[in-house]
Amino acid sequence: MTDTVYDMVILGAGSGGYAAALRGAQLGLKVALIEADKVGGTCLHRGCVPTKAILHAAETADTVREASALGIRAALEGIDMPAVKTYKDGIISRMYKGLQGLVASRGIDLIQGWGRLVAPDAVEVDGRRITGKNVILASGSYSKDIGQEISGPVMTSEQALELDHVPASAVILGGGVIGVEFASAWASLGCQVTIIEGLPRLVPNEDEAISKQLERAFRKRKIAFRTSTMFESVERHEDSVTVRAADGTTYYAEVLLIAVGRGPATANLGYEEVGVSMDRGFVLADEYGRTNVPGVWAVGDIVPGVQLAHRGFAQGIVVAEKIAGLDPTPVDDVLVPKVTFCEPEIASVGLTEAAAKELHGEEAVTTAEFNVAGNAKSQILGTQGFVKLVSLKDGPILGFHAIGARMGEQVGEGQLMVSWEADADDVASLVHAHPTQNETLGEAAMALAGKPLHNHS
Amino acid sequence: MTDTVYDMVILGAGSGGYAAALRGAQLGLKVALIEADKVGGTCLHRGCVPTKAILHAAETADTVREASALGIRAALEGIDMPAVKTYKDGIISRMYKGLQGLVASRGIDLIQGWGRLVAPDAVEVDGRRITGKNVILASGSYSKDIGQEISGPVMTSEQALELDHVPASAVILGGGVIGVEFASAWASLGCQVTIIEGLPRLVPNEDEAISKQLERAFRKRKIAFRTSTMFESVERHEDSVTVRAADGTTYYAEVLLIAVGRGPATANLGYEEVGVSMDRGFVLADEYGRTNVPGVWAVGDIVPGVQLAHRGFAQGIVVAEKIAGLDPTPVDDVLVPKVTFCEPEIASVGLTEAAAKELHGEEAVTTAEFNVAGNAKSQILGTQGFVKLVSLKDGPILGFHAIGARMGEQVGEGQLMVSWEADADDVASLVHAHPTQNETLGEAAMALAGKPLHNHS
Repeated sequence: MTDTVYDMVILGAGSGGYAAALRGAQLGLKVALIEADKVGGTCLHRGCVPTKAILHAAETADTVREASALGIRAALEGIDMPAVKTYKDGIISRMYKGLQGLVASRGIDLIQGWGRLVAPDAVEVDGRRITGKNVILASGSYSKDIGQEISGPVMTSEQALELDHVPASAVILGGGVIGVEFASAWASLGCQVTIIEGLPRLVPNEDEAISKQLERAFRKRKIAFRTSTMFESVERHEDSVTVRAADGTTYYAEVLLIAVGRGPATANLGYEEVGVSMDRGFVLADEYGRTNVPGVWAVGDIVPGVQLAHRGFAQGIVVAEKIAGLDPTPVDDVLVPKVTFCEPEIASVGLTEAAAKELHGEEAVTTAEFNVAGNAKSQILGTQGFVKLVSLKDGPILGFHAIGARMGEQVGEGQLMVSWEADADDVASLVHAHPTQNETLGEAAMALAGKPLHNHS
Repeated sequence: MTDTVYDMVILGAGSGGYAAALRGAQLGLKVALIEADKVGGTCLHRGCVPTKAILHAAETADTVREASALGIRAALEGIDMPAVKTYKDGIISRMYKGLQGLVASRGIDLIQGWGRLVAPDAVEVDGRRITGKNVILASGSYSKDIGQEISGPVMTSEQALELDHVPASAVILGGGVIGVEFASAWASLGCQVTIIEGLPRLVPNEDEAISKQLERAFRKRKIAFRTSTMFESVERHEDSVTVRAADGTTYYAEVLLIAVGRGPATANLGYEEVGVSMDRGFVLADEYGRTNVPGVWAVGDIVPGVQLAHRGFAQGIVVAEKIAGLDPTPVDDVLVPKVTFCEPEIASVGLTEAAAKELHGEEAVTTAEFNVAGNAKSQILGTQGFVKLVSLKDGPILGFHAIGARMGEQVGEGQLMVSWEADADDVASLVHAHPTQNETLGEAAMALAGKPLHNHS
């Protein structure tokens, strides 16, 4: 057993690591997968999946609240947060079991314990040396705490997911994806939320029109937010906090959720010692995941770029295929679709209008929007929002942006449009099913092609 | 006014007719749009839109019922059917106003009244002759009644939509789209439903695997159904019916809903008299909507093929563009996406496995499925189902089929795959956003490409 030389030794069994393992094993490689905690990593246990479960519980609370307007007489009797947690944990546990089964069924050696890179071809786990022709670094990320002690009323998303009650009020530091998702969920569950964001708008990585629409929706939902506002300090009381911003304003709340992004989990793992090139904690890797050290690869949140589970999956697959001698297509961050699961949901892929204009010049870029007010299914759901396409004037479509209830799921067609460099006409000539929200994409494409159907000018 | 010779005179302002009008006007044509009832036709006033509103109310009732399992303490206190109707009518009225505004803003002459074709270039409305270089027949469809008097407890979808209470029990004749949508909605609203279908399976136009899954789901939901069972007669009581099937079985219920499809509304409209070629009530037209009579065109449900609003829109646009001298792409019925909005939802586009094998031979066709049990978002929604891709062995993908809660909205990406003749690899190499239901399409494509990620074999 100690003599086994693996084809791939993977340090970390989160999205990037386990995807590499599954694909590698499928291609006949001998794989060791090292994990100190649980297979599935942040995404399954402390990130994407639990937050979406809580967001669905929150959506359900809203549905109950608004049911009578649809003729469904219902009363919201309360939020049973321990039961919400049981529901969430049930989902995680089911997905976790499935994933463990997959890993086992493909003959991957799962090694439990803290691993540390000790040579370009070796990871040490509890004194045991695991050797491989290739080592894949996939150690993931952690919630940044901006130097604050995480305890009591000051928390990151990790603690927030485990709360046994809904806080009466919360200050959320950060109006990015994690911040607005928690803001949305907590507001639906009855919490008074205030978001503080240093940049001039919520979800600052999205197209500006999306930010505007989200801010409008949040105002309507009584979710308070202050943009262009820098955090200065937090004063802890017994069961509450006072947050002070740089402009002197103060915010009192039961909890402070720090949601300012995730840092690469690369400290004390031996990376520098083995000579891996790094930048501010991130591991530098080329488009195929190769680091500067031959035989050492990196995937997922430790590699600079968008920190998303599905990017990790895709990078893991690319690395495994490259090691197996195939010729995979590298992952292009611009073509990684993004969904923010707040209410209303946000979906995007490709370039924002601003990015497209910067890249191609103001004159070369055109856009079209379709407001969901003209879409029957969106009206049935009672939502507001739009689809926006960004395109070169003579095509192709460069960016897809959407906002509205349930609109996250439209990202699939958006992705195909942008990735396959479709022209407006290519999409406009296709028939979209009525009455779906998906029609809004067809309508936006028709508008972009100069032949709007249900567009009010 | 009486001297105006229009470029297009359109008989019927439903989906096909008004789309032709809007597109024609946009292209600078002088358009008359003749309608006896309301712009928007069956789809908006008596079909797609009202049924989806009621289905959403039904979904809401289910959400309330199941909320406590998610930690949202709620009680379903009752169904207020007049309020459901108010909600439904509110949606219709908003969409109707929008549509009227669109028609007016594009300078279309909307002529109210019963029109009748009196010459290849003329329609008569209340004694007034409306003349055009082109006449477009768009008179739509009606609910078939298989010779039964529609009154009291015996109804079609039209009366069913206007009921002021939920029937305690119902026999639904027909397990096609309309039948299963009403079965689903009524069951959620508390009605005991039995479907009687003459063919061997529910939704017989869908892939066989979809029918099986729907039947499984309906059994779980306690929606009774008998397939391969022919209707024989109905006996009317004061407030109920007894339905007798050809095999001698009888079914007692408060109402009988006849949902056996829609016939072309072409009687007594002068079509035959002017010499338009017809077949069993349908108007025969070529791929551009041309009938055998020069200058006379036909679109929508009166043209043989799939009777769907979005096919009508698309045909209307094609006819208008053809008249304006453009070179539009004809509508291919195989590429018209279909969504059935029952719970679980069904989406499909392209060929079923059976149709593909018939067309290309057993050996040439391959399929891949991904079960939503392996999809986090579907688990969060608590749904069951799958995505199935039908493909030639060396590509392209020929058919997309999906079933599960909210899966109807996935039809957009399915449509692009099939319409653009993607190979499995083309889709498999794209990144799908986690954790969405949309991922199931990526997973199915990966499975089809021989590189399944989260597929349990």
